Amino acid sequence: MGGDHGIAVTIPACVSFLRSESGAYLLLVGRQADIEPALSAALGGGDSLRQRLEIVDAPEVVEMDEAPASALRGKRRSSMRLAIEAVRDARADACLSAGNTGALMAISRFVLKMLPDIERPAIAFQLPNRSGGTTTMLDLGANVDCEPGHLFQFGLMGSALVTALEHRESPPTVALLNIGEELIKGNDTVKQAGALLRESSLNYIGYAEGDDIYAGNCDVIVCDGFVGNVALKTSEGLAQMMGAFIREEFSRNWISKLMALAAAPVLRRFKRRVDPDRYNGAALVGLRGVVFKSHGSASLAAFEAALRRAYDAADNRLLDRIRASLDQVRANSNDPAGSSSVVLSS
Amino acid sequence: MGGDHGIAVTIPACVSFLRSESGAYLLLVGRQADIEPALSAALGGGDSLRQRLEIVDAPEVVEMDEAPASALRGKRRSSMRLAIEAVRDARADACLSAGNTGALMAISRFVLKMLPDIERPAIAFQLPNRSGGTTTMLDLGANVDCEPGHLFQFGLMGSALVTALEHRESPPTVALLNIGEELIKGNDTVKQAGALLRESSLNYIGYAEGDDIYAGNCDVIVCDGFVGNVALKTSEGLAQMMGAFIREEFSRNWISKLMALAAAPVLRRFKRRVDPDRYNGAALVGLRGVVFKSHGSASLAAFEAALRRAYDAADNRLLDRIRASLDQVRANSNDPAGSSSVVLSS
Repeated sequence: MGGDHGIAVTIPACVSFLRSESGAYLLLVGRQADIEPALSAALGGGDSLRQRLEIVDAPEVVEMDEAPASALRGKRRSSMRLAIEAVRDARADACLSAGNTGALMAISRFVLKMLPDIERPAIAFQLPNRSGGTTTMLDLGANVDCEPGHLFQFGLMGSALVTALEHRESPPTVALLNIGEELIKGNDTVKQAGALLRESSLNYIGYAEGDDIYAGNCDVIVCDGFVGNVALKTSEGLAQMMGAFIREEFSRNWISKLMALAAAPVLRRFKRRVDPDRYNGAALVGLRGVVFKSHGSASLAAFEAALRRAYDAADNRLLDRIRASLDQVRANSNDPAGSSSVVLSS
Repeated sequence: MGGDHGIAVTIPACVSFLRSESGAYLLLVGRQADIEPALSAALGGGDSLRQRLEIVDAPEVVEMDEAPASALRGKRRSSMRLAIEAVRDARADACLSAGNTGALMAISRFVLKMLPDIERPAIAFQLPNRSGGTTTMLDLGANVDCEPGHLFQFGLMGSALVTALEHRESPPTVALLNIGEELIKGNDTVKQAGALLRESSLNYIGYAEGDDIYAGNCDVIVCDGFVGNVALKTSEGLAQMMGAFIREEFSRNWISKLMALAAAPVLRRFKRRVDPDRYNGAALVGLRGVVFKSHGSASLAAFEAALRRAYDAADNRLLDRIRASLDQVRANSNDPAGSSSVVLSS
């Protein structure tokens, strides 16, 4: 029900996803009276897909600008709440929403609870990089003030997420976001988090700077939610500005318009490489269940990409991987020589 | 002497700047034995320019990777130190360096001292935006942990800087960098800084998010140095990646190469609009003197742009403007109804 376009986008995206992913089964949680006609229109004649989806009627909807506390306490029959409860009750392997991020976080935390020893959920997102792969960044806004132990836990969960989403053989490289060496090197929180990561069994490679997000030299970049959110939004703003400038230059006069026509295939390929639709779908990690968040303004293709990401995470046992990483840290901390106990009990 | 290219770039840039700015007079501070031949080569036959420049011999050079404390205590005859002393002694109206940022900050602070009631210097930088103007952002790395009063002071200095550099009639708009409304709205420091800015005589317009840096809807964006540095470096990384992708797509095969040739004028105009060279030159504000920092890897054109920025700031009495703003805040705080006293005494 959520997002800027609601079921006008989500339902056709679900149908398209089911067509391409023959092993998937979807619960569509929302107002049945609204979903039914949209679904019939999207399915067309292909009724066989109906066997792989089910509508779960939810009378209430969390508004995009609603306070998380109000959504949590006041709307116990919202589509968001029922979808997350389906994950809790093992009726679903993952939940995806394009709705209110704060409410999704609050309800997920309340309904699913946190994994043992994880204190805070984080929002993790995959961004394209120069090497043609992706860089996974977390946290992107769930936690404004972080302690070193939280940043360490983000590294651990980010590493497990990349392993699950990208079918890695070798352990993903993890870096900690910091500022230039010329300047005062980071704050105390970052320094202490660096020490925890260095001591851990993660494939920690040290500090990264902002430009490393797109350089393709590390798989996971860890930062607090304020910094991560600013980095992500700054990127969105710059990409939009550059896109607008390219369009303006190519439509300046009839010669440049002709050039735009001629160069269209090249420009299309370029656009596809940085297309935000392909990267839609942020993971809410740290919970006892798989929850993904789609951008509110997601297009059909973007929402489908987020569905695929949530499906892949569940299919590749994201939770088991995070649990295994936690067990490993716990085992090390029981070792008298280990010094990681502080990390999971901070 | 500083930067990645040293006098191979700085000297020709100085000569080019002098040619275009007939009112300028330059002190070239560095190793005279190195500067003399480079200068002769750059000047060619145009000896009349020589009357508007002077070499100040400095036997020592601060290395790019040297610790600020070592540069400050150990090198009292460095080019950086002597250049800043020339500002202190009113032999120069502004200082520009492409050298070690941390050392430039430390030596400037020690030699020039802070303006009254300003506790910390900040690094301010102008970025291009969609409306064709620039957005001035500070701090970009001088201060990792900021209190609300510091962020307020950055707003004040940023506002004065934009007034000086852009010859504004109306007071520049000032915004405070924060994260999305859906999420937990910023930390306590940001909230308290917002309250101080709201009460002040600045043209404060509220919170901005990362994408507003490039949207062109505010003149000054204030943030702590960690966040600002990450936003700037993230932008550099994304712009480099997009540039690399465009080049790759246009050189993929002979058809796309032909397209690149044909579209070259359009692509050149686009490139010029986002060319980092044009925006080179960060101001170190809060000091009792005008100090600018060029990017270490600056090209000739970029270093010349930074020279022009430093010249404009001095020419438009940047320091007087910051002092006047401080006086105004102080006057308000003497007013019994005023509540800004906390800001300048925090």
